Amino acid sequence: MRLSEKELISLIRRKLEQSATSKRVIVGPGDDAAVLEAPSGEAVVLSTDAIVQDVHFALHRCTGFLLGQKALLSSVSDVVAMGARPDSCLCSLGLPASTEVSFVEDLFDGMLMAARPLGVSVIGGNISRSDKLFVSMTATGTAQKDLLLKRSGAREGDLIYVTGELGGAALAASCFAKGEFSLEQIKVADCFLRAGCSDDSLSEEQAAVVELVRSFFTPSLRLNEALLLASERISTAMIDISDGIASDLEHVCFESGVGAAVEVDSVPVFGRIKRPVECVGPEMSALAINGGEDYELLFTVGPENEPRLRHLFTERNLCSITKIGHIVARSEELTYVDGRGSPVSGQGGFDHFAKGQRFE
Amino acid sequence: MRLSEKELISLIRRKLEQSATSKRVIVGPGDDAAVLEAPSGEAVVLSTDAIVQDVHFALHRCTGFLLGQKALLSSVSDVVAMGARPDSCLCSLGLPASTEVSFVEDLFDGMLMAARPLGVSVIGGNISRSDKLFVSMTATGTAQKDLLLKRSGAREGDLIYVTGELGGAALAASCFAKGEFSLEQIKVADCFLRAGCSDDSLSEEQAAVVELVRSFFTPSLRLNEALLLASERISTAMIDISDGIASDLEHVCFESGVGAAVEVDSVPVFGRIKRPVECVGPEMSALAINGGEDYELLFTVGPENEPRLRHLFTERNLCSITKIGHIVARSEELTYVDGRGSPVSGQGGFDHFAKGQRFE
Repeated sequence: MRLSEKELISLIRRKLEQSATSKRVIVGPGDDAAVLEAPSGEAVVLSTDAIVQDVHFALHRCTGFLLGQKALLSSVSDVVAMGARPDSCLCSLGLPASTEVSFVEDLFDGMLMAARPLGVSVIGGNISRSDKLFVSMTATGTAQKDLLLKRSGAREGDLIYVTGELGGAALAASCFAKGEFSLEQIKVADCFLRAGCSDDSLSEEQAAVVELVRSFFTPSLRLNEALLLASERISTAMIDISDGIASDLEHVCFESGVGAAVEVDSVPVFGRIKRPVECVGPEMSALAINGGEDYELLFTVGPENEPRLRHLFTERNLCSITKIGHIVARSEELTYVDGRGSPVSGQGGFDHFAKGQRFE
Repeated sequence: MRLSEKELISLIRRKLEQSATSKRVIVGPGDDAAVLEAPSGEAVVLSTDAIVQDVHFALHRCTGFLLGQKALLSSVSDVVAMGARPDSCLCSLGLPASTEVSFVEDLFDGMLMAARPLGVSVIGGNISRSDKLFVSMTATGTAQKDLLLKRSGAREGDLIYVTGELGGAALAASCFAKGEFSLEQIKVADCFLRAGCSDDSLSEEQAAVVELVRSFFTPSLRLNEALLLASERISTAMIDISDGIASDLEHVCFESGVGAAVEVDSVPVFGRIKRPVECVGPEMSALAINGGEDYELLFTVGPENEPRLRHLFTERNLCSITKIGHIVARSEELTYVDGRGSPVSGQGGFDHFAKGQRFE
């Protein structure tokens, strides 16, 4: 890093000036704290999250731009999962002394590109030195108090739904960990995503890299879907799938005081690419259940609301949704059944400490 | 760490339940995000900060309890320095796999003890694995929009004031770095601060350790002073002294488009202990100007408001305040003069990257 802290901060501020332009930003970057207009008649929703080098990503298997996108999206995802409208982010950065200035610029470019379509302003932050790079983000949003979608509302008999497809991010992580892609291939994917190009001109192998990089670093947040579920009062509980269905559904069960039965064969498995998925084979279903980091939504719906749910999602051209099970009485806890209703062996969620999963 | 992530989170939640009891907390720890009642008619103030192992502290020269206090106070300080009333904190924790559960418990005990007298609730957080321990905190607060004390309001002719005494935290850091105190002495200090005992029964040496540990880990935030300066519209600009006067006053000058002259001999130097201060000797003044981490306030006041300022601080029995210089036209930038008005050589603030200061 050739810049002093002051020069680096001034560079970051110039970038953030493009972002903190919402009328609600009273004081943007450059003061002790940022200030937002309080949402009139609504509640303030706050969440914090961090991604850490060699735990959540490997520096030689990513770019600053991709990392910035993932950091922002993974923290905003928690605000969306409350049925709230995200509005701002603060970024606390730990940077090794060897970090290139261009990497930091790319990191903020990634954050801003991810923030814009969600209506999110990056309003402030902090940099510290650190041996390993980390990005800790705090996301804020607003919601009508009585429309909040908490983890605690699931009731016996509710149906369990997920948005989109699962396992893509975990598949990508496993490919990164095995060193299946070169940094050059990842950089090509970075350029494609940055420019918003179509994959038509790419080789099948490079197109697969682009798709997996997209799954891992730029998950699609289901903002419109979440806001609809909240405003229409269709859903009883909601969570974003950050640690895997097994772990996240367990949170919902715990908070709601219920159990759940998951039909393993119903879980929608990431299938947008052919080659690497075929390599993984039967493991893919385990990745979809345990993998995490897809940031799709898991939500529960009373059976009486199922027709309206399906109708609204089709009518508004929203993402695909899939029923993966139902809520049962507490004593039954979390069980997995196959297509014939027979129990299958248990699945554990991602545990940052127990697994100690690392990228090489 | 013998606990799984789930067990650790449940332990932390039980602790935070003591904290998130304010009526403004709509959703506390345990959901995707925390939710606060929006402040009616006021603005939301947000700031984020991080402390990192081996950059801001050494694990073998601190305790979890002390670290929790410092992490919370240093982040809340930025909210206070806007003239805002702090209300909540979120904590993003990076923990090495070897972290003892008791250390994490102590860390949260420290946070909660620091939070309580400030009226702050710890409403949520996140844990990640990390090779080095880090604590990234986001503090929130509320303020009346037109009373915010920004960095940008200083005008030529304004007087520059600081609260309290400066250099204590830097002196402590220097003693820690030189290994002058044993971990046992620091643990004794921890117990004294935790129990709120008086230092009377201690040896002179141990009393000095307690005083320095207090300066470094549990700075006194000047909340009542900041709220008074804001509500009485006495001050034109304000900042907390986190990186040293040299650096922080430069921020005020830059944002306000002015310069400043600092009378070096007027800077109130930390003098609550004798022995180590005497060792440092003439360096103490440099520590007071460059040291940082005292989290005292630096603020500017129009000369017409000086009598009212002094009157109000005396009348309300607030902390000591000292005039250390005045604001000049921009061309003069930051200059330092001695008691006879002669220029003294320049002083640089703390730069996390240039200095690369580390504890051993």
